[in-house]
Amino acid sequence: MTESIPDQRLLYVSDNLSDEEIQRQVDLYGPLTDSVRALIAATVQTEVDDPDVRRARELVEEATALLRRKAIPGPYGVRWGASGWKRGWGNAADGLRNPVAPPLELHYDADGRVWADFRLGPQYEGPAGLTHGGVSALILDQLLGDTAVAAGRPGMTGTLTLRYRRPTPLGDLHAEARFDRIEGVKAFVRGHIADAEGVTVEAEGIFILPRWAREAVTDQTASTAG
Amino acid sequence: MTESIPDQRLLYVSDNLSDEEIQRQVDLYGPLTDSVRALIAATVQTEVDDPDVRRARELVEEATALLRRKAIPGPYGVRWGASGWKRGWGNAADGLRNPVAPPLELHYDADGRVWADFRLGPQYEGPAGLTHGGVSALILDQLLGDTAVAAGRPGMTGTLTLRYRRPTPLGDLHAEARFDRIEGVKAFVRGHIADAEGVTVEAEGIFILPRWAREAVTDQTASTAG
Repeated sequence: MTESIPDQRLLYVSDNLSDEEIQRQVDLYGPLTDSVRALIAATVQTEVDDPDVRRARELVEEATALLRRKAIPGPYGVRWGASGWKRGWGNAADGLRNPVAPPLELHYDADGRVWADFRLGPQYEGPAGLTHGGVSALILDQLLGDTAVAAGRPGMTGTLTLRYRRPTPLGDLHAEARFDRIEGVKAFVRGHIADAEGVTVEAEGIFILPRWAREAVTDQTASTAG
Repeated sequence: MTESIPDQRLLYVSDNLSDEEIQRQVDLYGPLTDSVRALIAATVQTEVDDPDVRRARELVEEATALLRRKAIPGPYGVRWGASGWKRGWGNAADGLRNPVAPPLELHYDADGRVWADFRLGPQYEGPAGLTHGGVSALILDQLLGDTAVAAGRPGMTGTLTLRYRRPTPLGDLHAEARFDRIEGVKAFVRGHIADAEGVTVEAEGIFILPRWAREAVTDQTASTAG
């Protein structure tokens, strides 16, 4: 069955790092990511002229060269430490090391609700002054997928349907989701984004575990049971 | 009717800049945005340790401080120059001044097809080694919305439905869309993302012009006719 497993599965890595080492990396790389996030907003908003823009660019390129002295050649992948601490740090929606991510910090309530409060800066604009509809989709795809995982039904996104009820402002927002139901191999999850006035975007996601992953889960269950 | 017009309409600005001045800004800010994009990828991929990360962070913060010397306080909005050159430069999918944008450069064929070839780096990861489903949604939302505009039916996204046929890799990708049909105030557009092997994600978007915007268009048509 090896030939049916996509290459990207190689990017799911158990590197057995200790919790102490992972925490050290959080403390080292997290602030760098935050600084780059602030730079992104400044790049959108700046009105300084030639000499300052050129100097800023030189500084940015010097920083990039420093960081590139030792770097992985491709995407970050997903890594697990010795205790099971999972690091999807390259994730575009919630990656600790990805300045593109708002980031989204998910909270899991005992009753099954999964939610996040987050703040979107000027780099998430679509229509003038408003959150890009595709950024809302990015946040909801991540939230709904993680809600399926929390319900014990992990999967790849099969279908995502977004209904834009009214404009989503930039700034302080809230998102939440709940597992809805199962139909065969499909897990249905519903959620929304809201501002202070109420819901702005509703979403339904259908998540499906690929066959190779279902087989891996079955194998693991069988060997654990054995 | 002024009270029914959202505040964000104030961010649609005619600033009457000449094409020469706009081109000067393209040449000034475009390369800065590209440099910050490279820094984002390096931030995800770096494996350098304490001293280099700290020094890189200092450089980034120095660049941010320089850019913040003179900056607009909020989102970029959408601006028009004297000749009608439109600048949605803060846009998260295709903004010239937004390092979060891949960016997407759209091409408009005479037969109505709208398309883009683009390359996604490690900062667009979702599942390990693959494009985030929400990033595909961001690209398709922008592409389908601009296809509606090109067909003379601009609008806000009402509904966006994404069907993920198979995993989308990172790297070189293609997206295209076509206007499908009109039903009342709704414009339907269809499109997809493809890799070298074919379609990975299909999308249908329904775009609706808000009432205040329809009234503005009607007013403008009436005054132009007069």
